Amino acid sequence: MSIFVKNEELFSIVQKIFNEKIPFNKTLGMQVELLEDMRPVIRLEMRNDLVGHYLRGMLHGGVIASIIDVTGGLTAFLGVLEKSGNLQIGESMELLPNLSTIDLRVDYLRPGLGHWFIATGDVLRIGSKVAVTRIELHNDETILIAAGTGSYVIS
Amino acid sequence: MSIFVKNEELFSIVQKIFNEKIPFNKTLGMQVELLEDMRPVIRLEMRNDLVGHYLRGMLHGGVIASIIDVTGGLTAFLGVLEKSGNLQIGESMELLPNLSTIDLRVDYLRPGLGHWFIATGDVLRIGSKVAVTRIELHNDETILIAAGTGSYVIS
Amino acid sequence: MSIFVKNEELFSIVQKIFNEKIPFNKTLGMQVELLEDMRPVIRLEMRNDLVGHYLRGMLHGGVIASIIDVTGGLTAFLGVLEKSGNLQIGESMELLPNLSTIDLRVDYLRPGLGHWFIATGDVLRIGSKVAVTRIELHNDETILIAAGTGSYVIS
Amino acid sequence: MSIFVKNEELFSIVQKIFNEKIPFNKTLGMQVELLEDMRPVIRLEMRNDLVGHYLRGMLHGGVIASIIDVTGGLTAFLGVLEKSGNLQIGESMELLPNLSTIDLRVDYLRPGLGHWFIATGDVLRIGSKVAVTRIELHNDETILIAAGTGSYVIS
Repeated sequence: MSIFVKNEELFSIVQKIFNEKIPFNKTLGMQVELLEDMRPVIRLEMRNDLVGHYLRGMLHGGVIASIIDVTGGLTAFLGVLEKSGNLQIGESMELLPNLSTIDLRVDYLRPGLGHWFIATGDVLRIGSKVAVTRIELHNDETILIAAGTGSYVIS
Repeated sequence: MSIFVKNEELFSIVQKIFNEKIPFNKTLGMQVELLEDMRPVIRLEMRNDLVGHYLRGMLHGGVIASIIDVTGGLTAFLGVLEKSGNLQIGESMELLPNLSTIDLRVDYLRPGLGHWFIATGDVLRIGSKVAVTRIELHNDETILIAAGTGSYVIS
Repeated sequence: MSIFVKNEELFSIVQKIFNEKIPFNKTLGMQVELLEDMRPVIRLEMRNDLVGHYLRGMLHGGVIASIIDVTGGLTAFLGVLEKSGNLQIGESMELLPNLSTIDLRVDYLRPGLGHWFIATGDVLRIGSKVAVTRIELHNDETILIAAGTGSYVIS
Repeated sequence: MSIFVKNEELFSIVQKIFNEKIPFNKTLGMQVELLEDMRPVIRLEMRNDLVGHYLRGMLHGGVIASIIDVTGGLTAFLGVLEKSGNLQIGESMELLPNLSTIDLRVDYLRPGLGHWFIATGDVLRIGSKVAVTRIELHNDETILIAAGTGSYVIS
């Protein structure tokens, strides 16, 4: 079974967990769009109820922090999986690594304006106890809206 | 006109802006409950669509970051108003100081479990350009769920 | 043997480690001044070679970050010891908990001016794997110069 | 006068300020090694008095925070200069932009082991009031030791 097939399986499991099992992800409409070399790409559509100020129509800071947090967490999760060498997680979803955010920094760089937004993450370190990832949020014009760093404990 | 009356007026203006003019605050159901000596108390009711994991029923990390961000911002806003000595903001809502989050740190300390949550903020510094505040989130059993620090630019 | 005596022993061990076994603490001249209910008080004397800008004579940002980091780490260390209930660490210094900083936030609030500075720490949470502490740095006029938050992994 | 010459002039002014006018930079032995496209490269030699733990011989967390802070600040300074389009700063060192750190995050990723260390910075945003930069610290084997993000107020 090729890596490609395994990643397809993994992608569908990650989608199922991320999009269906985490209620607030649904509330915001965040979706895992794809995995690029085990790095997640998360998409969010602009909606009126996600706005932070009625006059300016920008994404609320909390929505930005939310997508930064989940993207960082999913990046860490995939990094732990990859490091473990076990990508055939198949039916054993209960064996998945469990990560909790220790802390998160969000840098609000430019107004959260756009029709849709894309968040991507990079691993800074996957240790045995702690994972650290860096996250960026761009809008549909590839303007960097926000950046972040998250620390996650692995259990 | 007494300070008390002025604070009542201020409170009703703050409520109007916070609860009605910021769509995502409504989406989450965040409410300014009261102002204690110019420090805001924000309340959030637990709801199924705010949950981070269907099995554990805890508040999503993004919801926690959201309430930390808005509480820090409102604390900074009130600190700027207080420092300016102008609490009779009356009709001139357009003269209100405008603050944007520069960056935010959120520390996730304990599981976000509870029927409702209360966030409070403290000023660390109100400068002429930058304000810094510290935020805490407790649940209905007064357990400290999360803490944070936010920097805000004043314009 | 009373708690007081135990704390005296503990204090002298902590002083020995902090002041003598950590070369860079010596380089800066940081000293554990006392333990108040298991919370450390660290003192630093102003010196010309710790200055950040020759014209303004303020403490360098890196010195401030250094004292914030070590105070947060020592606060976490003492919190772990206290939680373990084992304060009679006596000869068994090799059994001491080992903490490493995961990440640190430093907020630079006011110019680092003063003859000497005092840093104090508070526990936000001592878990089994991760400890989080909050730190403040005041000058000799009790002006709050800087604040911080640190996360530490326990091993 | 070519850009190259201007950058040589700029580099020698930056070196003069960084290496000679900031006492604590000298105390640590931090040196601006070069500017690559207006991005600074800072070098630090390992020394016994910069160690954090006598047994393990690793760089002290405060030294790491120090080099992260100054690299982020210098990156922001050069970004502000570049944005202003005025690189012929010549004799007018008193006209240089003045930046102060608002806050700093440092992520300690791997043990601070090495003969020497190199810190580099990237601009995330240069605004009119606030600059945000991201910093990385590698050792002489190009292992990523630490990362950071800093916010700076421009005046």
